Amino acid sequence: MKQKLSIIKIGGNIIEDQESLSQFLNLFSRLKGHKVLVHGGGKRATDYGKRLGIETKMVDGRRITDAQSLDVAVMVYAGLVNKNIVARLQAYNCNAIGLSGADANTIIAIKRPVKNIDYGFVGDVEVVNTKSIAQLIRADLVPVFCALTHDGMGQLLNTNADTIASEVAIAMSQTFDTTLYYCFEKKGVLRSILDENSVIKSINQESYQKLKQQNIVADGMLPKLDNSFHALNKDVQRVCIGDITMLEPKAKLFTTITL
Amino acid sequence: MKQKLSIIKIGGNIIEDQESLSQFLNLFSRLKGHKVLVHGGGKRATDYGKRLGIETKMVDGRRITDAQSLDVAVMVYAGLVNKNIVARLQAYNCNAIGLSGADANTIIAIKRPVKNIDYGFVGDVEVVNTKSIAQLIRADLVPVFCALTHDGMGQLLNTNADTIASEVAIAMSQTFDTTLYYCFEKKGVLRSILDENSVIKSINQESYQKLKQQNIVADGMLPKLDNSFHALNKDVQRVCIGDITMLEPKAKLFTTITL
Repeated sequence: MKQKLSIIKIGGNIIEDQESLSQFLNLFSRLKGHKVLVHGGGKRATDYGKRLGIETKMVDGRRITDAQSLDVAVMVYAGLVNKNIVARLQAYNCNAIGLSGADANTIIAIKRPVKNIDYGFVGDVEVVNTKSIAQLIRADLVPVFCALTHDGMGQLLNTNADTIASEVAIAMSQTFDTTLYYCFEKKGVLRSILDENSVIKSINQESYQKLKQQNIVADGMLPKLDNSFHALNKDVQRVCIGDITMLEPKAKLFTTITL
Repeated sequence: MKQKLSIIKIGGNIIEDQESLSQFLNLFSRLKGHKVLVHGGGKRATDYGKRLGIETKMVDGRRITDAQSLDVAVMVYAGLVNKNIVARLQAYNCNAIGLSGADANTIIAIKRPVKNIDYGFVGDVEVVNTKSIAQLIRADLVPVFCALTHDGMGQLLNTNADTIASEVAIAMSQTFDTTLYYCFEKKGVLRSILDENSVIKSINQESYQKLKQQNIVADGMLPKLDNSFHALNKDVQRVCIGDITMLEPKAKLFTTITL
């Protein structure tokens, strides 16, 4: 029987709020079994970019990562955010090890080809090195991934943290019984955006189609759910969406996604 | 018989010069056997500090690390410098993994007690977790340490890279036959500062005393040599001081320090 593995992705709002982050790290450290954390950089990369006089370039509403923006992302994601999370997890006796995709060659990506838009130093995941990640996990280390990958030729690349989480979950599900948790500021997928507690407890492919038709699920929730079904279709056991309390041992209020 | 381990510390001048760094990383990646790299941050932390409007505070010629300066050090050392080195080593097929002392709980330090001067977030190494580092090395990973440690209570600390190199070498020499290399811009300890090739090929404790009396060895060289003898007195097998070419298979021109 496969060992269990939990892969938890935390969003920017949790990282930015010191109280939420503390509460999350405490709950995460108590989570039983093998686990992996994936985080983005929150607003901090944009803030430091501004302070350094580096403008965030947008084309058609998409962020462009030029060389200077990449440097800021590397400093904030892999440096400031990652190392502080690791140090704080160590204080909770959680043997964390911070990683970019370049470390131990864990995630190889390809620089997004230029079609209509040149996204700059943005990477689409090509290979997740399951052997390398499993080796760390089996040494009872807790990998903490930031949203950076590399191309294997010396170039770091910016990669969406949700995507890193789902791609790592997909790859690891070959070896482990893997659950993917998307942890953000809401209690789950909501039936009404006005009611925080209107959490839809479970969504499958059929009900997802209906929710989309009824416009109950829209906007930012769509890529998260598409990512979830993509992961489930590639053998990830279970995907859960909710807030920090989802990691509590007796948590009930969150959304479970199944096929 | 103990396995061999090379611990190489590179100085700021190598990090700042792209050509030197490329040449170094190429030679380092070809080095046979187990190895560890230790690096500082060069001038880049100071430069980014300036760009962010954070002044470098000095007291009695010593740099003070306040909270803001620590953030910059964490961004530059653990982010920008460390991850770019790791990505470039991966391109040379060297399976590097970037670490601060917090990662895998590898280096625990104590915040320097306030006596006459409050150095701020500066850490003096207390424990090097040999088991944790050996586990990574035996998994054929190449640890790349930046000049950061942690206090085990969630606080990152700034620690001199030369000290990290010697403390890691001392700790690992319990398990490995360890050689410590201080790699900087000069070919070794020079007899005359005016003659680049006047390398003193070997120094022992006795000759060191004479060199000091004759004022041949002075200034910045003294802490490096004191660090070297400290390491040798604590069972490090060999200490070598020289430039990048010291890592070439047939290198001859560098300084070897012995007891």
